[in-house]
Amino acid sequence: MSMTIDAQDRTGRPAQPVAPVVPTVGAVRPLGIERIRIDDGFWGARQRLNQESIIPHLEYWEERAGWLKNFDAVVDGTVADVRTGQKFADSEIYKTLEAMAWEIARSGDAGLQTRFDRIVARVAAAQKPDGYLNTRFGNAGQPPRYSDLEWGHELYCFGHLIQAAVARLRTGHRDQLVDVAIKAADHVCEVFGPDGLQRVCGHPEIETALVELSRVTGDERYLRQARVFLDRRGHGTLGDIEFGRSYFQDDVPIRDNEVLRGHAVRALYLTAGAIDAGIEEHDVRYVDLLRAQYDRTLARRTYITGGMGSHHQDEAFGDDFELPPDRAYCETCAGVASVMVAWRLLLATGDLRYGDVIERTLYNVIAASPSDSGRAFFYTNPLQQRVAAAAAPADELSLRAQSQLRAPWFEVSCCPPNVARTFAQLASYVATQNATGVQIIQYMTGDIRAELDVGVVELRMTTGYPDDGVVTIDVDSAPDAPWTLTLRIPEWAESAVVTVDDAEVPVVGARCTIPMTGSGHRIVLHLPMEPRIMEPDPRIDSVRGTVAVARGPLVMCVESVDLPVGVDLESVRIDAAGALASTRSGVEASGRLVGYEDAMWPYRSVADEASRPAVPESEPFRLPLVPYHTWANRGPSTMRVWIPRSHTGRPAA
Amino acid sequence: MSMTIDAQDRTGRPAQPVAPVVPTVGAVRPLGIERIRIDDGFWGARQRLNQESIIPHLEYWEERAGWLKNFDAVVDGTVADVRTGQKFADSEIYKTLEAMAWEIARSGDAGLQTRFDRIVARVAAAQKPDGYLNTRFGNAGQPPRYSDLEWGHELYCFGHLIQAAVARLRTGHRDQLVDVAIKAADHVCEVFGPDGLQRVCGHPEIETALVELSRVTGDERYLRQARVFLDRRGHGTLGDIEFGRSYFQDDVPIRDNEVLRGHAVRALYLTAGAIDAGIEEHDVRYVDLLRAQYDRTLARRTYITGGMGSHHQDEAFGDDFELPPDRAYCETCAGVASVMVAWRLLLATGDLRYGDVIERTLYNVIAASPSDSGRAFFYTNPLQQRVAAAAAPADELSLRAQSQLRAPWFEVSCCPPNVARTFAQLASYVATQNATGVQIIQYMTGDIRAELDVGVVELRMTTGYPDDGVVTIDVDSAPDAPWTLTLRIPEWAESAVVTVDDAEVPVVGARCTIPMTGSGHRIVLHLPMEPRIMEPDPRIDSVRGTVAVARGPLVMCVESVDLPVGVDLESVRIDAAGALASTRSGVEASGRLVGYEDAMWPYRSVADEASRPAVPESEPFRLPLVPYHTWANRGPSTMRVWIPRSHTGRPAA
Repeated sequence: MSMTIDAQDRTGRPAQPVAPVVPTVGAVRPLGIERIRIDDGFWGARQRLNQESIIPHLEYWEERAGWLKNFDAVVDGTVADVRTGQKFADSEIYKTLEAMAWEIARSGDAGLQTRFDRIVARVAAAQKPDGYLNTRFGNAGQPPRYSDLEWGHELYCFGHLIQAAVARLRTGHRDQLVDVAIKAADHVCEVFGPDGLQRVCGHPEIETALVELSRVTGDERYLRQARVFLDRRGHGTLGDIEFGRSYFQDDVPIRDNEVLRGHAVRALYLTAGAIDAGIEEHDVRYVDLLRAQYDRTLARRTYITGGMGSHHQDEAFGDDFELPPDRAYCETCAGVASVMVAWRLLLATGDLRYGDVIERTLYNVIAASPSDSGRAFFYTNPLQQRVAAAAAPADELSLRAQSQLRAPWFEVSCCPPNVARTFAQLASYVATQNATGVQIIQYMTGDIRAELDVGVVELRMTTGYPDDGVVTIDVDSAPDAPWTLTLRIPEWAESAVVTVDDAEVPVVGARCTIPMTGSGHRIVLHLPMEPRIMEPDPRIDSVRGTVAVARGPLVMCVESVDLPVGVDLESVRIDAAGALASTRSGVEASGRLVGYEDAMWPYRSVADEASRPAVPESEPFRLPLVPYHTWANRGPSTMRVWIPRSHTGRPAA
Repeated sequence: MSMTIDAQDRTGRPAQPVAPVVPTVGAVRPLGIERIRIDDGFWGARQRLNQESIIPHLEYWEERAGWLKNFDAVVDGTVADVRTGQKFADSEIYKTLEAMAWEIARSGDAGLQTRFDRIVARVAAAQKPDGYLNTRFGNAGQPPRYSDLEWGHELYCFGHLIQAAVARLRTGHRDQLVDVAIKAADHVCEVFGPDGLQRVCGHPEIETALVELSRVTGDERYLRQARVFLDRRGHGTLGDIEFGRSYFQDDVPIRDNEVLRGHAVRALYLTAGAIDAGIEEHDVRYVDLLRAQYDRTLARRTYITGGMGSHHQDEAFGDDFELPPDRAYCETCAGVASVMVAWRLLLATGDLRYGDVIERTLYNVIAASPSDSGRAFFYTNPLQQRVAAAAAPADELSLRAQSQLRAPWFEVSCCPPNVARTFAQLASYVATQNATGVQIIQYMTGDIRAELDVGVVELRMTTGYPDDGVVTIDVDSAPDAPWTLTLRIPEWAESAVVTVDDAEVPVVGARCTIPMTGSGHRIVLHLPMEPRIMEPDPRIDSVRGTVAVARGPLVMCVESVDLPVGVDLESVRIDAAGALASTRSGVEASGRLVGYEDAMWPYRSVADEASRPAVPESEPFRLPLVPYHTWANRGPSTMRVWIPRSHTGRPAA
C-alpha cells in the first residue's frame, strides 16, 4: 500500500495538536495530549509513576552524577577539569527537559514548571553567543568543536535540545529554552549548510528534530538542513571504525538501503528523521522506500517483544533472522525509537498494523524498563537469562549498561529519560483523526476529543486491558452528521467481536470501521484474551524447537522464582499442544522436566540414535508464566521467553 | 583421576628438552623440537608456510605499522608523539621473536637469525637502566608506568618478552634478548614483590612466563613472584569496568572458581600460569582444582571445533551451554591458549584426552586462521556465516578484529604471531616420554627420538592423516630391554585397530599401550575415517534441532560456494540418518531443501499446527561439506557447521 498524502491538511489548521509529531500532511492526524487523557489502568499508573517517581529520579541523578553541573562549569570556566559523564551527557538533560515539558502540559504541575525553569536557566547560561552549546567540546582546554563527529554526539545533543523546545512550543510556551534551541538550530544551519562543513553526526537525531522545528515554527530552512544531513549520509564523511561505517549508517545512502542495519537506535532515529523530511517534501516514493526498510526490519530483525538489536558489542541489528534470545540487546531506547518510526508511518499511511507494532513495543520493551518503584531501569531487554544476576546496587551508578537487574542509573543513561518522555507523551499515541472520523489505536481508560469537519466528537473509553479484553467506548458527544469510528484489531485477535449498542458489527482484518451518527452510543470491543502458543519462523536458528506464550499484547516468560524449589529452568520443557489457562498473575501452561546426562564433551555421534532411549521427560506439571515486562521485579532469577518443546507432547512432524 | 607427580624427575636431567613447556615434575615429559621433527604432511606444510611466509609477513607488517619503530622512538625521545598501535603492540614484536627463536632452532635458518638479532637490538636499546621497557608508558610525555594496570598491558608485554627469552635459552642461546628479559623480570619482582605495588596486570601472561623463566634459569625468585601475582588475583586490586572484574578474573580468587569465565584468552593464560606454578610447588590439589575448572569449561563452554569464547563484546566465555555458532568468537589466540592449558595438563597427568583437545583445536581453530598464502589470518572463528562478507582488503591494516574474511593485519594483531609461535614449536606436542616409554600424542609424518632409562628409541612415523587414517610407526632403533609405546586413541575413534608386525593388539579407551623390545618392528594404527553425524548437548539452545558432520579430527562445514547455483544455504536441511561419503574435498551428505513463506511478522500461533501442512522438503540432493579450517579460502561465502535436521529423514522422536 502506498502512503496517501492528504493534501487538504496542508492548508493549515488554526491550532496544531499538542503532540510530539505533527506532520503537515498524512492519512491521519494526531490528536495530541490536550485532546486525549489517560486516567487509569496500566498506562495511567505508569503516567503517575512518571510524574511522581521517574522524572524526580532523573533530576536527582543528573544533579548527583554532575551532568547538570557541567553546564555551570562551562560558565565558570572549569569544565575541562571537572566535567563528568559521557560525551553525550548533555542530551540526558535535554531529554529530561522534554519529558518535563510534556508532563507539565499533561498534569499542570506548577512545581515541575519551577524545576524546569531552573534547569533551563543553567543550560542557557552555557550557550555561546553564536549559538554553540556543549559541555564536552569547544570550551577552554577541551577539544575543538566538531573535532570528533564520529563519537562526539554534538549534533545529537542539539537534536534533543531542539526536541525539548518543540515540546515547549507545542505545549504553548515560547520560553528561554525555545530561544536557546532556535539559536542552536540556526548555528547548525550556518555551520553545516550546503556550503559549510561537509560532515554528519555519528549519531542521527538532529534530522527529526530539525524537521519538527520546521513544522512548529514554519521556518523551512530547518527542513532544508535536515535534507542536507540526510543526503550527505551514506557517503563516508565519517571515518571508518572497528564496526564499519554501517554502524552509523554512513556506508550506503539511505535510498540504496534494504533493511535497517548497524546501531539500532541510530538506524531508527535516522529513519524517523528521513520519514519526517519525506512527508514534508511530499515525496511519497521516499517515504514508501523507508517504510519498506522498516517493514523488512519487522519481518526479519525484530524480536517477538518488538525489541530490536541483536548484538551487545555494537548495539546493532544482526543479519536477517539473527535473533538470539540470550544476547538480545533490545535496548529500551531502540524500543522508543521503533515507536517513533511506527507512529510516523501510521500517521502517513493510516495503516493500523503500525499500531500493533507500537502496542507490542510499549508493553514488552518500554514497560519492561522501569521497576515498580520507577527508580531503576533496564537498559537492555534480553529474552533469556541463564544465570540469576547479582543484584544491582540500589543506589549506585552502574558501569554496566547491560545490567541484568534494573539499575538506578548508568554511566550511559540514555534509556531512563527516553522512557520518561515516552510516558509523558503517551496519550498522543492513543487515537488519531481525519476529516471524517476517529481511529482508536491503543486501548486505555480515558477521554478522547476530536474536532471533525462535521463537528466535535467526545468519547469515553473504559477497559481493564490488557488484563481483560473488553473495551467500552461511550460516545458522550457527537454531531448528528455521519462520521466514522475505527478500531484497530490487533493482528493476534482473530476472533475479536465488536458490538454497537449490543448489535454485532463485522470485523475484517486490521480495522473495524463503524459508521456513526449522534451521541449516546456504546461500542464494545471484545478481544480474545486466551493465551496463545507462538512459534518462530524456522529461519530463526537460535530458537529452533521452542515456543513462546503470549496473552493479548503481552509476551509471557517463565521465571525461576515461580518454579518448584530445586527445579532448574534449563530442564523445563513445554507441551506446545497442552492446555493453557489464564491466572491472576499470568498464564499456566503444561510443563515437563527432562534430565540431562553430564558428559566430558557436549557433542556426540548420532550413529546409535535409533538404539538410544529418547531423553526421558517427567509427567506434566503446571508451568506458571508471567508477563515479560514484569520480569526480575521479584529479585534475581533466571528467565526464558522461548521454551523448548516437549517431545512427549509434540505431534509427529 | 589425580595428577601423578613423578618425583624422580626432580633430580634433574643433564639437558632440558628444547620445548616451550618444561615442568620439573609430571607424569610425562616433553621431548622437544630437537628430538621430534615433522617433515611432511598437513603440519609439515604449515611449518614450511610459517618459515617462508608467515614469519616474514609478521616482520613486514610490524615494521610497516610502525610497531617496531616505536622502540626506536623511545631511544630518540619522540615516542609520545609518533607511537602507533594499541597499548600492547610491543607484545606482538615479542611473540614474533619467540616464533623466530623456535623457528631458528627448527630450521637452522641463518638469515632468520640475522633478522632476529636486528630486532632484538632495537628492542634492547629502548630498555631503561632499571629494566623497565615499554613504548606506551613511562617515556617523556607519556602516562607514568603502571598507571593503567587495567588496560595498559605492561606486565603482559613483559610476559611475552620473557617467553621469547625462554625460547632462546631452551634453544641454546644466552643472548642480548635473554639479558633484556631477565633485567625486565628482575624489575617486575622488585616493583610488584610481596612488599611492592599490590596490583596485578589486567591481562594475565606474566605468570606462566615467570614460572618458565624460573624453570630455565633455576632461579626460584621468579616462581615466587608468579605465586604472588596468582594469589593477589581475584581480590579486586584492579578497578571495576563495564564488563565487571570477571573480565580479567579479578573478582574471585582462582581457588574459588568453578569454570573459566571472562575474557577467554586472559582466563586461559592465567590458568596456564597457575598450573605451571602449582606443578613447580608440587601442589597436587591446586593443579587438580585447575584441571576441574578446565574440564568443566570443556564440558559446557567449548565449541565442537575446540574454540572458546562466546561473546564478541568482551571476547569472553558465555554462561554454561551458551555457544551461539554465528556469534562464536573463538579467537585464534584462545585456541592457542587452550592448547597451552591442555598440554600442561597432559604433561602433569599423562591423560591422553588432553591430546584430543589439542588435536581438535589445532585442526579446527589454529589451522583455520592462516590463509593458504600465510599472509592473511582469521582473528575470530565463528561456526556460521549468514551473509557473505565483503572481501577484506588484501594489503591494508584491518580495523575489524572480527573480519569475516582473513585479513593481512589487524589493529589488534595478537593472533598472527600466536599462530606463528605455535607452528614453530609444534613438533614438541607430537610425543612425550617417561622413564620407560614413549607416548605418541599427535599423528604426523616425521621422526621421534627418546632417551629412555633403558636406552635410546628412534621412531619413524608416516601417515596421510587426517586425509587417511593409517599411521605407520617404524621402530628404527630401540634397546633390547622392555619399553612401551603408547598411542593416543582419539575419543571419536571407536573402532581403531592397532597391529604390531601385522598382529592385532587390543585397544581399550583413550590409549593403546604396547610392550616393546628391540628395533625393526612396525606398528600400524588404523583410525576409522568414516564421516560422522554429530549432535549437540540439548542444553545448547542455539543449535537445537541441528547436527554437524565430522571426519576424523576435522569438523566439516557447508559453504555456499559448493551449493548449486541459486540455492540459499539457509534453505538447506540435512538427513541426519542419511548416508555419508568421503570425497576428495571432504564429505558428501544427504541434503534437502525447504521453502519458506515470507511474512510481515516472523512469529505465529501454533493453534492450527495440526491442520497445517508440514514445511515441504525437496527430494534429497548431494550436500558437499569441506573441512571447517578451509572455509573462506575460495572467497566470500556463507557457511554453516550446524545444519538443521531434515524432518523427512528424521526418525520419530
